[in-house]
Amino acid sequence: MAPTTPRLVVPIDLTKKPWEQKVPLHNRFHPDIPSIADVTEGEVFRVEMVDCRAGAVGDNDTALDLNETDLFAIHYLSGPIRVLDKEGMPAKAGDLLAVEICNLGPLPGSEWGYTASHDREHGGSFLTDHFPDATKAIWYFEGIYAYSPQIPGVRFAGIPHPGVIGTAPSIELLNIWNERERELEENGHKSMSLSKVLHQRPFACLPTRESCFLGKIEEGTPEWEKIAKEGARTIPGRENGGNCDIKNLSTGSKIYLPVFVDGANLSTGDMHFSQGDGEVSFCGAIEMNGFLDLKCEIIRGGMQEYLTPMGPTPLHVSPIFEIGPVEPRFSEWLVFEGVSVDESGKQHYLDASLAYKRAVLNAIDYISKFGYSKEQAYIILSACPCEGRISGIVDCPNACATLAIPTAIFDQDIRPKPGKIPVGPRAVRKPDVLKCPYQGNLPITKNPSASA
Amino acid sequence: MAPTTPRLVVPIDLTKKPWEQKVPLHNRFHPDIPSIADVTEGEVFRVEMVDCRAGAVGDNDTALDLNETDLFAIHYLSGPIRVLDKEGMPAKAGDLLAVEICNLGPLPGSEWGYTASHDREHGGSFLTDHFPDATKAIWYFEGIYAYSPQIPGVRFAGIPHPGVIGTAPSIELLNIWNERERELEENGHKSMSLSKVLHQRPFACLPTRESCFLGKIEEGTPEWEKIAKEGARTIPGRENGGNCDIKNLSTGSKIYLPVFVDGANLSTGDMHFSQGDGEVSFCGAIEMNGFLDLKCEIIRGGMQEYLTPMGPTPLHVSPIFEIGPVEPRFSEWLVFEGVSVDESGKQHYLDASLAYKRAVLNAIDYISKFGYSKEQAYIILSACPCEGRISGIVDCPNACATLAIPTAIFDQDIRPKPGKIPVGPRAVRKPDVLKCPYQGNLPITKNPSASA
Amino acid sequence: MAPTTPRLVVPIDLTKKPWEQKVPLHNRFHPDIPSIADVTEGEVFRVEMVDCRAGAVGDNDTALDLNETDLFAIHYLSGPIRVLDKEGMPAKAGDLLAVEICNLGPLPGSEWGYTASHDREHGGSFLTDHFPDATKAIWYFEGIYAYSPQIPGVRFAGIPHPGVIGTAPSIELLNIWNERERELEENGHKSMSLSKVLHQRPFACLPTRESCFLGKIEEGTPEWEKIAKEGARTIPGRENGGNCDIKNLSTGSKIYLPVFVDGANLSTGDMHFSQGDGEVSFCGAIEMNGFLDLKCEIIRGGMQEYLTPMGPTPLHVSPIFEIGPVEPRFSEWLVFEGVSVDESGKQHYLDASLAYKRAVLNAIDYISKFGYSKEQAYIILSACPCEGRISGIVDCPNACATLAIPTAIFDQDIRPKPGKIPVGPRAVRKPDVLKCPYQGNLPITKNPSASA
Amino acid sequence: MAPTTPRLVVPIDLTKKPWEQKVPLHNRFHPDIPSIADVTEGEVFRVEMVDCRAGAVGDNDTALDLNETDLFAIHYLSGPIRVLDKEGMPAKAGDLLAVEICNLGPLPGSEWGYTASHDREHGGSFLTDHFPDATKAIWYFEGIYAYSPQIPGVRFAGIPHPGVIGTAPSIELLNIWNERERELEENGHKSMSLSKVLHQRPFACLPTRESCFLGKIEEGTPEWEKIAKEGARTIPGRENGGNCDIKNLSTGSKIYLPVFVDGANLSTGDMHFSQGDGEVSFCGAIEMNGFLDLKCEIIRGGMQEYLTPMGPTPLHVSPIFEIGPVEPRFSEWLVFEGVSVDESGKQHYLDASLAYKRAVLNAIDYISKFGYSKEQAYIILSACPCEGRISGIVDCPNACATLAIPTAIFDQDIRPKPGKIPVGPRAVRKPDVLKCPYQGNLPITKNPSASA
Repeated sequence: MAPTTPRLVVPIDLTKKPWEQKVPLHNRFHPDIPSIADVTEGEVFRVEMVDCRAGAVGDNDTALDLNETDLFAIHYLSGPIRVLDKEGMPAKAGDLLAVEICNLGPLPGSEWGYTASHDREHGGSFLTDHFPDATKAIWYFEGIYAYSPQIPGVRFAGIPHPGVIGTAPSIELLNIWNERERELEENGHKSMSLSKVLHQRPFACLPTRESCFLGKIEEGTPEWEKIAKEGARTIPGRENGGNCDIKNLSTGSKIYLPVFVDGANLSTGDMHFSQGDGEVSFCGAIEMNGFLDLKCEIIRGGMQEYLTPMGPTPLHVSPIFEIGPVEPRFSEWLVFEGVSVDESGKQHYLDASLAYKRAVLNAIDYISKFGYSKEQAYIILSACPCEGRISGIVDCPNACATLAIPTAIFDQDIRPKPGKIPVGPRAVRKPDVLKCPYQGNLPITKNPSASA
Repeated sequence: MAPTTPRLVVPIDLTKKPWEQKVPLHNRFHPDIPSIADVTEGEVFRVEMVDCRAGAVGDNDTALDLNETDLFAIHYLSGPIRVLDKEGMPAKAGDLLAVEICNLGPLPGSEWGYTASHDREHGGSFLTDHFPDATKAIWYFEGIYAYSPQIPGVRFAGIPHPGVIGTAPSIELLNIWNERERELEENGHKSMSLSKVLHQRPFACLPTRESCFLGKIEEGTPEWEKIAKEGARTIPGRENGGNCDIKNLSTGSKIYLPVFVDGANLSTGDMHFSQGDGEVSFCGAIEMNGFLDLKCEIIRGGMQEYLTPMGPTPLHVSPIFEIGPVEPRFSEWLVFEGVSVDESGKQHYLDASLAYKRAVLNAIDYISKFGYSKEQAYIILSACPCEGRISGIVDCPNACATLAIPTAIFDQDIRPKPGKIPVGPRAVRKPDVLKCPYQGNLPITKNPSASA
Repeated sequence: MAPTTPRLVVPIDLTKKPWEQKVPLHNRFHPDIPSIADVTEGEVFRVEMVDCRAGAVGDNDTALDLNETDLFAIHYLSGPIRVLDKEGMPAKAGDLLAVEICNLGPLPGSEWGYTASHDREHGGSFLTDHFPDATKAIWYFEGIYAYSPQIPGVRFAGIPHPGVIGTAPSIELLNIWNERERELEENGHKSMSLSKVLHQRPFACLPTRESCFLGKIEEGTPEWEKIAKEGARTIPGRENGGNCDIKNLSTGSKIYLPVFVDGANLSTGDMHFSQGDGEVSFCGAIEMNGFLDLKCEIIRGGMQEYLTPMGPTPLHVSPIFEIGPVEPRFSEWLVFEGVSVDESGKQHYLDASLAYKRAVLNAIDYISKFGYSKEQAYIILSACPCEGRISGIVDCPNACATLAIPTAIFDQDIRPKPGKIPVGPRAVRKPDVLKCPYQGNLPITKNPSASA
Repeated sequence: MAPTTPRLVVPIDLTKKPWEQKVPLHNRFHPDIPSIADVTEGEVFRVEMVDCRAGAVGDNDTALDLNETDLFAIHYLSGPIRVLDKEGMPAKAGDLLAVEICNLGPLPGSEWGYTASHDREHGGSFLTDHFPDATKAIWYFEGIYAYSPQIPGVRFAGIPHPGVIGTAPSIELLNIWNERERELEENGHKSMSLSKVLHQRPFACLPTRESCFLGKIEEGTPEWEKIAKEGARTIPGRENGGNCDIKNLSTGSKIYLPVFVDGANLSTGDMHFSQGDGEVSFCGAIEMNGFLDLKCEIIRGGMQEYLTPMGPTPLHVSPIFEIGPVEPRFSEWLVFEGVSVDESGKQHYLDASLAYKRAVLNAIDYISKFGYSKEQAYIILSACPCEGRISGIVDCPNACATLAIPTAIFDQDIRPKPGKIPVGPRAVRKPDVLKCPYQGNLPITKNPSASA
């Protein structure tokens, strides 16, 4: 074996449930979840991971499985992994952990994935008010390329990446998270109209015992109860990295994560074969089972040296990263603009989220002119390597966001030109994405979770 | 002459004031501003333009001129230009005007520009709460490259582009704009705390007689009075394009603008030698006098064919465009993340504007570790070809935005590495950007304008 | 399993010799070598392959193994594979076989490779007159990156590709090859001076019984004897593709191969983790054991439709291909020029081979100023993703060739600048490549072979 | 004026002949041609230039003007320019002159160019045996794009560059050139068959009084006679740079030229709007009148520090350069292979010139299947930004060269696919390139020149 053959530190057996894996998984961030392996600076090691829905979404002809997804269980992560330097000393709070993504991909034998939107009563999505039902498309991988039986005429090279990569928070940081998210959960509705709150996606995803899984720690023990009560849900990205869903954390990139606890305790999960900026349809990347080959370096004291906090404590930092050299190369892009005026025509103030929503809606509508349903277009924009940009953020009152789509993903030329569109709404490109209205067995009151 | 030698339709004489130009300029959008020239489909023509502050900001050693800028006058545009097909028939409402940017650049003899932030009492900027004073840096152009005496060690190839390119609105569209912006102006403060409103940038920039300039129409005439009262200020980008400040509208790109009035009445202005996504410092591109070589094509009926409105009327559309093939090529990027938690530690809900603000603050702080002042870093990020991305917008409650900086713009390696930063705060790279606190002679109550 | 999980059609067991593999390999091109598997259009299948020296070159501290390489045995190929359409009908002579490289990489557990030059008495290399001895460097792979213990300070993402991919020739084409190469072998020396012939590399590599291996056909049988006598050695690229050593046949590329026999009979081998244009050091890519995931499409009649022969028969064609989208992205290149004047100062006439030789020599010399030995520099240029261009070929008498090196592969800035080079010849970057003069046990008269 | 406004040091008046220009031009390299201007390190200055045929080739409907071109006069260069450091000390022999190309383009008012092949009796071209007649296509520029009325359906962004950029040789270097080229001129035919020599292009372009033009030095003076007798023709690239015709010397690139005489004496000319690698049709770029904005830096002693000679004297060096960041970006390429077997089927030995010839012939033939004449295809490959690569140069006996064509330059999809080519030979895309057989008034014996 070459010294660079990756050592497998977390194996996944796809015939087993996430809670049955030999090296146990976890789905909360907490300093007390014990590490499952040690790795040394410079060593190349492999981590295998289950998909974001941990096998609950199948390669089948329905989107009903989305509706039955347990949102409390998301995401089953591999790790935590303790990182040591070459002398065997662990990374320490205040260090910076440089993690290079040497390689990544789907698990062998599992060369497929899915992109889905959740029902608005069950997690919703960025455009949940326009696309209230669960939808799903299956993608098959041919090496670097993906295609979907539900979306004919589209094929592209993805930018594979882990949706989740992060270190363990310290207890102080965890308290900060829980406090600020609880405050939002409790008071967020006050700044919204009633009608909006009713169909609002969940504000935050607070700690809960439900479906909590903590690696080697046995359910029901006092230790488990304590961590379950405090452990951060993994849905949002935060100071420790986590579920940032940044498509550019792909092969060859290097992420600099702050270290909050001894050993750093690195966790990863939620592998994506591809994703558009924003991951708009919520379960919106091409979700897959996958592996990561990683190499770590400890930059002693690097957190203080490089990451000055911008918030009230020294813990209010954000990771930084370098983009790798092998992202797919596209040279032709069709770009959609959006400004911060909502669908009712109301003017909002420098709201980039709204501007991006408008850009996405504009693009969906446009693509639907070329023989696709709007649901297909939504899935395409969520899954393909499109770029979402904040183009202008100072020109009161309109933020201007843009969404750039690589035209090469289509087997037809979608640029505007004189004359009628040859493939119009009358020539729908069947089949369509799988679509299933929610049946209501998972009421919103029991489901304060959100996102992917 | 080759048939492709650009015909000069709007000349600029830099020794004259904007209102003294031979072909008169205008600084409002209104259907009744008469066109100043006709161009024909397929013809390559040249438009020259004054910079966004129309000569009021000088190549000098003070930022005081920013404080004396007349924000009511922004932007002096060249045009409107009426577009005809090869048979001499004008573009019509409902058409799509494809405008190819064949070439562009600074005006010969004027190979310089500036990047500035306004005082928070006089327009402000994206980070006005962190950078309350006016600041300015001068940039000199060496062909495709720019460097600034105020920011040593930084040099880069820009992505030159017009900040403003747009068609004339119809009167219906104009009414929509004025109504929705007035509504915001009047009620925007209701959703903010008092402390925030006090130092808030202006909500909107409503029509005003002040500093209104309408091309050939003489000031004070009834026609002038009517248009001045209705004419849209040019600050925000809107359905007609306008001041979208999209850095990728560069050489070789093609923009598809909706046509609202006969002839399309194309106006351009606010040339930028370079700009980062967001144009964060407000007067934040490298602002310059410039020329555009354009070629138009009319896609008859294309507005209906390609741009389905997403709002309550058929006029609620947005332009689309194709990116050109010669943007500067960078392969190494250092990327900063931001999530929607504000500087006080408060959690906000999926707010991409805030997430981007945090990413920019993180990047400023980081760059300041390499010998720059924070003001220099702010100007760098505003002016250089950095990319602002909406990476994740569904993972409640945190939007995740990223800011990618091409590392090649620096003459030092700014990537994190073990050990101390060789050029630290103790080795400030002087000189610094020009900085001038506001003296208060242009009170905020008389200045409800905003942006660049 | 997803329908896109690659079916393994040729497995390699690295604990066994090439002639012991379960699915037998072959090292000649001949129409009568029987196919070892059928694949169907559209199916994704996997082929595993041994490295170009079939295990004879080790991960050790000597280049002596190069000197003992059996050049008659090169290259052990996997296949031939018969390609059928979806109806089960084989590809036919005159068709075009489109082969998409869906994925490729080193064999798991074998994440390393080597780059070597042969002794000038034993195969030589492009610069054999300057580098007469065998040299070797070992490379270890960290996902997409490679580094060598013998070449400190260099690390890069490779452009992995198969050196050999080709269809079986018809007997007519085989006869053409054998005749034209025999003519060169017999008469090539006539156009050279005696001194040059003495140290000339072999002219051609004619059929020979020695070390011939023909898949399932048993050695010594009449069938074996016939094929061994006629079978084309695999060293040069020819009409069927074969050992073209084109670095851009990487992930996502699609090669269009002419079909000369029923079933196409596709063979592949000689996997490279990376290679510079020219593969100048002869065994000059990063040679590795590897796998290819392929997908075939038959373009019926495509050879006639697309490939008009440029020579005296309809068989004188060349493959064409499309480049894939994920080659490593470099933006900064240092480029060396060479013109067709040789090292003695003699002028040659529009000789691009010589011009490229000069460009490579110039680059080697330049790199050696930064602390490397010339042997290290030679290996770097042979193995890294540098680009060799024919820049000018019409300006009598000088052809001008250029060699572009991505500067990011070095951990130091190698661009010229004022002052002395900080790391000069006095600061040699040890260790050096492994180097072993030839001991003469494989005399040139017994070794009319050449290349890799 | 900004300090970066380029100072015009060589103006061109297109209404005048090359020998009538206010700042006189020259068409030989010689140390005694006096410099026409001084420039200082760091200063941005502008040089204007006539096209390679100095106005003799018109925007008209015939290729006859090619046949009447005076090959002895090629190329009229602008300069020489003496380069001083900031203290006013000139560059010295042994220094390296770093020349940055800040900007370049066609002369205003002259936005057109031409691509031509010469008759085989009058200079010929790379494929003169296949294309014996003069041909010509006119190109019109639309900013960064070019199109030709003679080649419908093709439009592309060029990579503009100077064909000629070089320093003055010392008298020692000049003698080396003259000796080695005279030797080739006299003995080159000995290594070729009679039939080949008869239609061979000229071997070299030796000094001649004919059409010699030496700047300020008056014709007929003793000084003129001496220089005319010794002065190097500008056709081939050599140690001083000169006519290397490297397409990548475009905007933003930086070329490091050796300095052989005090002041460096920089000359430039032969502007190209675009060119394919090899410039195969001889007058084969898009030839234009143009300007260059340059900035120089003197690297004292840099020639010795960086450029070790590879030949018998310290003067046997070659320039190096860095590629600029704004070359047009293409992501899809169709690539043609060629090996060193000639059109008669004869095998040659590792001959990259022949391999590239075969790749070009293959590509011409291929393109001609899409409705173009072979002459059109030849011009396309000569003028468009295609890449010519030496892919394999060690696999005896076949060199393998590749020619990569960006598919986006065509308005149709030229990739192979099942079924018949929709636009076949039956649907020729008229009009064709202008084509004129040679009338014989410029006999080959009086014309020992070659190339452009």
